[in-house]
Amino acid sequence: MNHFRPVELGHASRLLNHGPTVLVTSTHGGRSNVMAAAWSMPVEFTPPRISVVIDKSTFTRELVIASGAFGICLPGAGLVDLTYAVGQASGRKVDKIARHKIATRRGPVLGVPLIEVGCAGWLECRLIREPHTEDAYDTCFAEVVAAAADSRIFVGGHWTFRDDNTELQTIHHLGAGNFVRAGGVLRATGA
Amino acid sequence: MNHFRPVELGHASRLLNHGPTVLVTSTHGGRSNVMAAAWSMPVEFTPPRISVVIDKSTFTRELVIASGAFGICLPGAGLVDLTYAVGQASGRKVDKIARHKIATRRGPVLGVPLIEVGCAGWLECRLIREPHTEDAYDTCFAEVVAAAADSRIFVGGHWTFRDDNTELQTIHHLGAGNFVRAGGVLRATGA
Repeated sequence: MNHFRPVELGHASRLLNHGPTVLVTSTHGGRSNVMAAAWSMPVEFTPPRISVVIDKSTFTRELVIASGAFGICLPGAGLVDLTYAVGQASGRKVDKIARHKIATRRGPVLGVPLIEVGCAGWLECRLIREPHTEDAYDTCFAEVVAAAADSRIFVGGHWTFRDDNTELQTIHHLGAGNFVRAGGVLRATGA
Repeated sequence: MNHFRPVELGHASRLLNHGPTVLVTSTHGGRSNVMAAAWSMPVEFTPPRISVVIDKSTFTRELVIASGAFGICLPGAGLVDLTYAVGQASGRKVDKIARHKIATRRGPVLGVPLIEVGCAGWLECRLIREPHTEDAYDTCFAEVVAAAADSRIFVGGHWTFRDDNTELQTIHHLGAGNFVRAGGVLRATGA
C-alpha cells in the first residue's frame, strides 16, 4: 500500500527545513541517475524554491543541466545503506537505479524519476538556470513544482516523528558514512 | 571551563553537513545582533565555503552587508528556547544579545561576535559579495576563515553524539517552534 499524499506547495519547504540528506534523481535522453547529496536547503517559501549543491563533475549535473529538472527524495532511516552506496558510485559507470533495483515513478509535472519506497517524501524541481553560481559554488537553484510525502510521517504540512515510524525518519549525514536520524522532538517554550 | 577547541578549516564543512539550525551573529557600527536561521549549508570543502539564507528585510542582513562578515553558531539542544526566541524578534527593535544576556567572544580573524556557552561549535565567515543571489534568493555566500567546536561533542574533525552530551547536540527546526535533536547514530554498511 502506498501512503504518499500530495503536499501543498506552500508547505514544501518544511520537507527540507531540518536539513536532511537527500537523493537527487534525474533523467535525460534515456539515461537516469540517482546520487546522494547532503547539501541542500530551501531558499524561499512562496514561490517554493530550493538550492542544492551538485558537483560539476557528476553525471547528475550533466543530466540536470540537459533536462532542466530533477527530483529531491528524502530517504528514511531504512535506506541508509542505499544512500551511502549511491553517494559513492558514479552514474557514468553504472546504472545505479538498475543495480540497486530502485523503483521509481514519474513526477506529475516534469516526469522526473521519483523514489517513494523507503522515502519520507519528494520534491519535483524545475532548474532555474544560474550559470555563475552553478560554476562558482556548484549551487543549483530550482523551483518546486510538485511535492508529496508519506502520510505515516508527514501529515497536514507537519512532520510527526514517532516510535512507530523510525524507518521513515530522515537521515542527516555527518560524514564518512555516519548518519544521525532525526528524532527526539523538542518544542520551544513560547511556540 | 571552556571546552572549545579550534577546528581545522578542512573539517569546517562537517559542522554544517547534517543540516543543523544555526544562529547568525553580526556586528557593525557599535550594534550587534543574533538571529536564527534554518537554511544554511556548506558549498565547498576547500576553500571552505558556505551559504546561508538571510532575508533582505532583517537587521542581520544590513549588518552583514555593511561589515562583510558574520558568525554561524550551532546551538545545542539546551538552547532551543533561546533559538526560537531570537528567531521571532527583530534586532532593529531590541538588542537581543543584551536582552537574553548572551555571552559572546570576538572571532579570531574578523572580530565577529561568537557564542560558545551552550553551543556545539561556530564558524567565522567572510561574506563573498554576490549581489544577484543575495537579491534573488536571499542567499549569502561566504568563506569560512576560522572554526571551533566544543570538544565534548566534536573531536578530531568528527561529531560524537552520546547519551552524556545531549544538551550540546544540534537542533533541526521542523517549523513553528518544533525541533528535532540529532541523535541515534547510524553507520552505513560499507563505510
